[in-house]
Amino acid sequence: MSDRVPVLKIGQVLLVSIQVDLEDQVVLDLQDDLAERIVATGANGVVIDITALEIVDSFVGRMLANTAAISRMLDAETVVVGMRPAVAITLVELGLSLGGVRTALTLEKGLALLERDRTARTGRP
Amino acid sequence: MSDRVPVLKIGQVLLVSIQVDLEDQVVLDLQDDLAERIVATGANGVVIDITALEIVDSFVGRMLANTAAISRMLDAETVVVGMRPAVAITLVELGLSLGGVRTALTLEKGLALLERDRTARTGRP
Repeated sequence: MSDRVPVLKIGQVLLVSIQVDLEDQVVLDLQDDLAERIVATGANGVVIDITALEIVDSFVGRMLANTAAISRMLDAETVVVGMRPAVAITLVELGLSLGGVRTALTLEKGLALLERDRTARTGRP
Repeated sequence: MSDRVPVLKIGQVLLVSIQVDLEDQVVLDLQDDLAERIVATGANGVVIDITALEIVDSFVGRMLANTAAISRMLDAETVVVGMRPAVAITLVELGLSLGGVRTALTLEKGLALLERDRTARTGRP
């Protein structure tokens, strides 16, 4: 079976829901897939849902920051949603502030954030 | 008796008033409580009132910066209010500029600042 993380499309946004253990190859595959899909679809937003992650380490923290940086390079804004309180605390303790990665509490709020962004950038909904 | 610092809710804002000596465990408990409450309530702002603090050291300075970073990770903006002149001077002397932490002179001004922020971000009050 494949351990690839699926990339779903909702309107102009790509949604990635992290539910498996993030081993190196899984992360590399995900970044490849996501970059391909951003270019193929012209999506201008990426939502990474980490509700299922109960703990993070510096590897996961870097993965989130890197994935956001890759997406930004392809002109898509990233929002991380579903972060648990303990995860936020660990990230700060690790000295990872996820610079440049925006967060929202829920998928709904994340999508609304990207929607507002798009409206602000393009002047139309 | 518990030495936990209470976290109060005013509309969309959580209010923390520091009135006890900040020992390590108190700070850790406060960060836990605050992170939990941000996620549970969906609050988008945090006000930390330090009127009662007559002196600060680098431990307190780092606590303020870390608490703000954790809140930001959970999509809530932090404002520190009630800073005494001597405290501001000490923080600068310690080389702690509280990067990324906003300040306001009074609780009222802090709440108004968060309110303006929210209006700017969401386009509605």
